[in-house]
Amino acid sequence: MLGICVIGSGRAGLIHARNFAAGRIAGARLVALVEPVAEARQKACQELELDTAYADHAQALADPRVDAVIVATPTTFHRAIVVAAAQAGKHILCEKPMATNARECDEMIAAAEAARVTLQIGFMRRFDAGFLADKQRVDAGEIGQVVLVKSLTHGPTTPKPWMYDIRTSLGPLAEVNSHDIDSLRWFTGSEFEEVYAIGGNYRSPDARQQYPDFYDNVILCARMQNGMQGSISGAQGVKYGYDARCEILGEKGLITVGSLAANSVVTHTADGSQAAVVQSWRNLFLDAYRAEDEDFVRCILENRAPRAGGPDGKAAVLVVNAGNQSIAERRPVRLGERVG
Amino acid sequence: MLGICVIGSGRAGLIHARNFAAGRIAGARLVALVEPVAEARQKACQELELDTAYADHAQALADPRVDAVIVATPTTFHRAIVVAAAQAGKHILCEKPMATNARECDEMIAAAEAARVTLQIGFMRRFDAGFLADKQRVDAGEIGQVVLVKSLTHGPTTPKPWMYDIRTSLGPLAEVNSHDIDSLRWFTGSEFEEVYAIGGNYRSPDARQQYPDFYDNVILCARMQNGMQGSISGAQGVKYGYDARCEILGEKGLITVGSLAANSVVTHTADGSQAAVVQSWRNLFLDAYRAEDEDFVRCILENRAPRAGGPDGKAAVLVVNAGNQSIAERRPVRLGERVG
Amino acid sequence: MLGICVIGSGRAGLIHARNFAAGRIAGARLVALVEPVAEARQKACQELELDTAYADHAQALADPRVDAVIVATPTTFHRAIVVAAAQAGKHILCEKPMATNARECDEMIAAAEAARVTLQIGFMRRFDAGFLADKQRVDAGEIGQVVLVKSLTHGPTTPKPWMYDIRTSLGPLAEVNSHDIDSLRWFTGSEFEEVYAIGGNYRSPDARQQYPDFYDNVILCARMQNGMQGSISGAQGVKYGYDARCEILGEKGLITVGSLAANSVVTHTADGSQAAVVQSWRNLFLDAYRAEDEDFVRCILENRAPRAGGPDGKAAVLVVNAGNQSIAERRPVRLGERVG
Amino acid sequence: MLGICVIGSGRAGLIHARNFAAGRIAGARLVALVEPVAEARQKACQELELDTAYADHAQALADPRVDAVIVATPTTFHRAIVVAAAQAGKHILCEKPMATNARECDEMIAAAEAARVTLQIGFMRRFDAGFLADKQRVDAGEIGQVVLVKSLTHGPTTPKPWMYDIRTSLGPLAEVNSHDIDSLRWFTGSEFEEVYAIGGNYRSPDARQQYPDFYDNVILCARMQNGMQGSISGAQGVKYGYDARCEILGEKGLITVGSLAANSVVTHTADGSQAAVVQSWRNLFLDAYRAEDEDFVRCILENRAPRAGGPDGKAAVLVVNAGNQSIAERRPVRLGERVG
Repeated sequence: MLGICVIGSGRAGLIHARNFAAGRIAGARLVALVEPVAEARQKACQELELDTAYADHAQALADPRVDAVIVATPTTFHRAIVVAAAQAGKHILCEKPMATNARECDEMIAAAEAARVTLQIGFMRRFDAGFLADKQRVDAGEIGQVVLVKSLTHGPTTPKPWMYDIRTSLGPLAEVNSHDIDSLRWFTGSEFEEVYAIGGNYRSPDARQQYPDFYDNVILCARMQNGMQGSISGAQGVKYGYDARCEILGEKGLITVGSLAANSVVTHTADGSQAAVVQSWRNLFLDAYRAEDEDFVRCILENRAPRAGGPDGKAAVLVVNAGNQSIAERRPVRLGERVG
Repeated sequence: MLGICVIGSGRAGLIHARNFAAGRIAGARLVALVEPVAEARQKACQELELDTAYADHAQALADPRVDAVIVATPTTFHRAIVVAAAQAGKHILCEKPMATNARECDEMIAAAEAARVTLQIGFMRRFDAGFLADKQRVDAGEIGQVVLVKSLTHGPTTPKPWMYDIRTSLGPLAEVNSHDIDSLRWFTGSEFEEVYAIGGNYRSPDARQQYPDFYDNVILCARMQNGMQGSISGAQGVKYGYDARCEILGEKGLITVGSLAANSVVTHTADGSQAAVVQSWRNLFLDAYRAEDEDFVRCILENRAPRAGGPDGKAAVLVVNAGNQSIAERRPVRLGERVG
Repeated sequence: MLGICVIGSGRAGLIHARNFAAGRIAGARLVALVEPVAEARQKACQELELDTAYADHAQALADPRVDAVIVATPTTFHRAIVVAAAQAGKHILCEKPMATNARECDEMIAAAEAARVTLQIGFMRRFDAGFLADKQRVDAGEIGQVVLVKSLTHGPTTPKPWMYDIRTSLGPLAEVNSHDIDSLRWFTGSEFEEVYAIGGNYRSPDARQQYPDFYDNVILCARMQNGMQGSISGAQGVKYGYDARCEILGEKGLITVGSLAANSVVTHTADGSQAAVVQSWRNLFLDAYRAEDEDFVRCILENRAPRAGGPDGKAAVLVVNAGNQSIAERRPVRLGERVG
Repeated sequence: MLGICVIGSGRAGLIHARNFAAGRIAGARLVALVEPVAEARQKACQELELDTAYADHAQALADPRVDAVIVATPTTFHRAIVVAAAQAGKHILCEKPMATNARECDEMIAAAEAARVTLQIGFMRRFDAGFLADKQRVDAGEIGQVVLVKSLTHGPTTPKPWMYDIRTSLGPLAEVNSHDIDSLRWFTGSEFEEVYAIGGNYRSPDARQQYPDFYDNVILCARMQNGMQGSISGAQGVKYGYDARCEILGEKGLITVGSLAANSVVTHTADGSQAAVVQSWRNLFLDAYRAEDEDFVRCILENRAPRAGGPDGKAAVLVVNAGNQSIAERRPVRLGERVG
């Protein structure tokens, strides 16, 4: 039985922690939690009926019962924790975005390789039943060669103040659109060549004065290395719900995936038809997180490569950086271009 | 150019009149209107830019410019007008329900046959693009042998006081569900054998005291002669819109037709997703009415039988009568049974 | 920690067994299984990583680690097992249909009451997120007073030979439509007064000769005691998927629940739009089964009445019996009528 | 009664011609047609039951029965014909794209103003019921301030050889996306400030050698002058149907308009759910073309400005030119920038 430690008890961290605590993931159990804030730590332990919790990840990495860690802290801590975890011989599932830049990613990948531990990145859409069915249909040639992939993520959550500084948070392209970036790579089977992005702050008046370059809405056009096209939109603080949809245009057809409908109930009255909208990625992708956690455990036990590994995480970080540069400099940015 | 006279300027009458007045129907033009109420007559003439209007249908039948009539009066007048029109050599498109009982229908059919004029009944769903596509798919064997046809019509209009007496109005089974009855015959390719119906007055408190047997909501189960099953529901005064949907269950699949969506616009806000509902059969079946009018003209000009003729009208009236008897006597009623 | 024993390792039994074996249900664990067929028993134990399995339920009832049983055997065994379980002081979740007739139901209810154990009936749609949202909207008055409830269940599974004898199996009204019957009671808040049903065998040629009264397709009209109307359709062996939808017509609107879409993926090609259909109630209601199992455990621990208890099970059995009698005698049958 | 002459008997020309020939447009009638190709001219006259047809537009402009012209020729002829028509005192409805560059547009606008004739541009989506409902909801503030407008048009028609030279045809941005460009202006209430576009040839192998800069697929990101964002995609020769959808993201919600469903019929079988896809803009926007023609006539009769006039046509041409330049130069292009 693999012992799992979740580092960070924010929203994503708790999803993973609940999966492992409830015994939903065969072959693994939650044995510890890391959370620096005492109050949040106690609350999480209580909910998870967990005895062991640490304030510092170093303590967890020294705990021999811990075989693997889930890293769900703010992005700036990812590199240090992942490298330390690898050096301690722990397997790692690291949430997206992998890190703040390519150099950090390289260090993390190198550390995991040196220690021969599994390093998986949290692109859980690759485990979602809908996205998987979509991918199967694309791969089966139902729409011929792919021409254009469009992917959007709009989230209801208002950006938190620490996100305002996009030098450290990397902005919505990282927080919200990392998944879309990964989907474009996944569905086109290609790396990004060049991106052009436009960002703007429409719903976050608090950030305007101090962080004039903060954006809560972004569109991005991409040229893929294999000549395919890509288009992404991202939004934070939309009021209507959580929206994650993707369209893949091929030579012979179009595949659409994603829906705003929270359930199948529709009320028809004199005011028209009314239906509930998905309110959170936590509802929408709950099964995907579970499948991701299951596969993480199986990758470790069967000693095979994860569906999304370090290079996938790094590739997304590169696109985020290029996108942010494009927004700032108002010009298309090539991937691998020397960043000013 | 066929000269058309519309008899009755209610809602259905005006739809036909507008089609012919606007020149939308090749080979025919509106030449006259019959409406006994002076005010309604003048209003209709003005809207239709029409010179000729009569208070009595006998005048219209004497007008040599009139080649064909559209009968859109209350049901009780259908027999007399249709028989007179046939005797005057006019072709006839008679709105549903054809008449109040089978004997009247027989007289109308006989008169049209004797005069060798076209007698078409206003089952315009047989001309609707959706229902036609549905029928084509059924006939192409896409779902195998038909097992069960379910059809519903719910209308927003509150029943008018003259409908309260179901002996003369025949009730919602006639006013609302004639189309569903015709659809069951059309999709099963069979006559009705036996029906069982339940009716109730849920939204028409004004009728309760004087017309205790009035119903504004009805469900009906049918056994078809060829062994297939049928199910109908009807409702008047529903607040949410106009609802006409049909489902055909076959041995190998299911076909659904009909939608509540008035257009493709959906607004997603914190209150959920919201869309407009179809508000009237006039919007929903506008193209079907036009196709029906066009085919009526072509049937006359090409001297061929209409898609829905007198026997189709009579068959539906028989089902209405049996259904009403079933509601009253709380037992299944066989078609052709001696009516008490 | 409640010890759970699942009796019967058919499809429904395994769903419950998997829930408890995987630790998905807080406060309870699977401790034993009863399955008379050795091969099936071993296969189930292997899948569930379970040590203890019995060939006979009496052995399980004697096992002190068993606190509660899930009864998922063929209907004919329900009475004997439930009564014995109650007498052994075990709490009971009994699958639908509860039993073959009202007398059996009464014995089961009496035994549970005498032993003061929980007796819950497996109407898991009451735990489905969609149906619950539907019920909330109805109860909140969004569509005013209910007028008509329509509910359908069409299943892909071909009837098994033992179902052909409807005297013991009770036919599709029990196997397939028990849930719809329960939904009509739930949404109208009323008992059934009278039903009329039509059945036919359309897809089961094997049964025709020996079981001429077997039906694999049924429609049923109902009059509820409070004057509301109900309509049900049931089908076995439909090829297209698993179909469970419900519509509630109120004075002021309509609520629809249920969808055929298996996921949100749609492929658009020259052949049109194509989407996957739900293939099994096991997929559709997996979360509902889990919520049902969770509530069963909580009802026991908190000593409160289950959402669907013995009287709910009995009420559905009465409707099934009346419906079958109506099909056989081709007349409406009142509930509580002396059964011939 | 206004006399209408349609210039050009291609697909768009025939739609207008049929509207006016059939008398569907109150206050106007088709009196003549201009088509240089004899065979096409005769065929059109026959279909339209029209006596008068000219090989040259100059002849039509000299015909005193002609009060207004519909210009539906290839784009390169628009300027000359519109200017001549204005000078002849004829009112003008000119199809999109208005012309090949801004200077031509200016000449056309000036000529119409000098002659005091109506000059309307064929942005018929502004007359579509769905897009109008969408606009109403936006203007009513249902989603707050607009943030981002996304609009796509994918058409099934393979590009014709004359379109391969984008210097004269202006490419798909003009042929296909003129409507999307207009929608962005309409829904944002703003002019374009800067665009960035990516084009590629994915389905037109014939064009590759001789016209390496031809593209049949394009994505475009836009910065509007008022700070809003815009995103467009265009495709020619998609196999699956005609696809025109738009999404408007506001501060408080999202509005979607457009649907791929050709009708409401869905077949569910063992192969899944299957529905027909809209096959042509001619089906989808038939009512919009009629409403556009009606409004054109009313604008003339009531002497009021058209819903989409010369400046709207010019604005779209400017965006097309900037987009094509962006594709060629792989950089964002500001509107009004000196074109190389």
